[in-house]
Amino acid sequence: MTATVLDGRRVAEKVVAAAAGDVAALARAPGLATVLVGDDPASEIYVRNKRRRCVAAGIRDLHRRFGADVTQDELAGAIRALGGDPGVTGILLQLPLPPHLDADALVSLIPPDKDVDGLTEINAGRLALGRPGLSPCTPLGVLELLDAHGIALAGAEAVVVGRSNLVGKPMAQLLLRRHATVTVCHSRTRDLAAVCRRADVLVVAAGIPGLISADAVKPGATVVDVGIHRTPDGLRGDVDFDAVRVVAGAITPVPGGVGPMTIAMLLANTVAAAGR
Amino acid sequence: MTATVLDGRRVAEKVVAAAAGDVAALARAPGLATVLVGDDPASEIYVRNKRRRCVAAGIRDLHRRFGADVTQDELAGAIRALGGDPGVTGILLQLPLPPHLDADALVSLIPPDKDVDGLTEINAGRLALGRPGLSPCTPLGVLELLDAHGIALAGAEAVVVGRSNLVGKPMAQLLLRRHATVTVCHSRTRDLAAVCRRADVLVVAAGIPGLISADAVKPGATVVDVGIHRTPDGLRGDVDFDAVRVVAGAITPVPGGVGPMTIAMLLANTVAAAGR
Repeated sequence: MTATVLDGRRVAEKVVAAAAGDVAALARAPGLATVLVGDDPASEIYVRNKRRRCVAAGIRDLHRRFGADVTQDELAGAIRALGGDPGVTGILLQLPLPPHLDADALVSLIPPDKDVDGLTEINAGRLALGRPGLSPCTPLGVLELLDAHGIALAGAEAVVVGRSNLVGKPMAQLLLRRHATVTVCHSRTRDLAAVCRRADVLVVAAGIPGLISADAVKPGATVVDVGIHRTPDGLRGDVDFDAVRVVAGAITPVPGGVGPMTIAMLLANTVAAAGR
Repeated sequence: MTATVLDGRRVAEKVVAAAAGDVAALARAPGLATVLVGDDPASEIYVRNKRRRCVAAGIRDLHRRFGADVTQDELAGAIRALGGDPGVTGILLQLPLPPHLDADALVSLIPPDKDVDGLTEINAGRLALGRPGLSPCTPLGVLELLDAHGIALAGAEAVVVGRSNLVGKPMAQLLLRRHATVTVCHSRTRDLAAVCRRADVLVVAAGIPGLISADAVKPGATVVDVGIHRTPDGLRGDVDFDAVRVVAGAITPVPGGVGPMTIAMLLANTVAAAGR
């Protein structure tokens, strides 16, 4: 058996097209403030891509750039001003920030209904309590990708590898909300392969290249790889794709799986925030 | 083998004594506002017990009683006033409320640092994000009871049955924070007994009398029963105690297990809130 490859690029295009349609139907286009601090090259690329996709979907691009020496107070003032500006419907504070800044304190200044990355305590609480809110884009993208391929979640055994605030923990909440039986694994899990082998749906967000091989996958399972690592052999995920694809029923590629879904869900969140 | 019985009354006494000691060491005693609406007999008993235990520990009793016909605005005004009163260090809104009131909206008016029941979105978010905050008393009590008996959690397989906002979901977060591999089961879980049999630590908060019997318990496992039901044969939990005690390594009784721990943790939370 060879697994179905879950094409994130194709599904992402559909999500982006739907977001663009929603934007066109709004009386006023959403305005997304992307806040970039310093000159981390990866962050620059991420923000540029996000802005490009947003502009293509008709979202107003309200970019704010700050030098690496900006003070906590200056940045706090800027985020407060964006929070109070009715023309700004979404705020994205690109992380990580330079080490002299307190990122948690700055994120907490983003009004929850403009928090398109779903990073605030209130949105994490809304997700935990099963209430409407804005959730992190990567786990939302995984869910959208699974739905687009008709992968059943209710009653399924779902295993999430990784417990980060950005992916693993919100992913578990979203799968639980969709009535999966959900297990969260991490670095302290005793027999990781054995736990993963229980999964009908396995989501891997461990940040360790090639962590999951065929021995950790139940035949026919759906395997979603959130990892992305630059290696001498090109981009690789947390899953050993070549070994796992002959066991799994469905699998996401790296690149072209979860990655494109993350940006697509940023657009969806930005549209949702504008409607809140 | 017969399981060790985890004595919640004994551990609760220690927690209460520690809270009373902390209160005595404070410059000013914490003030807990218990807000009771209407005349639900069970709620009256719960609130009376909570107040009695708090007074015994030296906490100032700031009880507020409202008729069943109180309006949303009146109650909202009262909670806002308590929130702004520096003499009130904790606020407990006893649930459920009469059906004409919007409980979520009222809870959201409690300042997070006075939210001794850990019910607000911000405290749920802090728990989900692994940050300091006030968490619901029952799962905190379970953790305290396990710790008091030296039950290892790091690397253990923990299974939580039930996904309520008050017990199941925060319990899972707390166990995850303590490095257990955590599975959450619920009414849509396919083979509940098989999933429960994986558990080194099984926490049952399903609200179904006798749901868990010996076939769902791994020999030597620790079984915590959060359920409490009035039956013709007296108080019973979600676990078939007589059947499970010959399989489990440790088990909580009903009554006298988790119940006393819940009130004890309310005192601990009230002391913690006063220090925030």
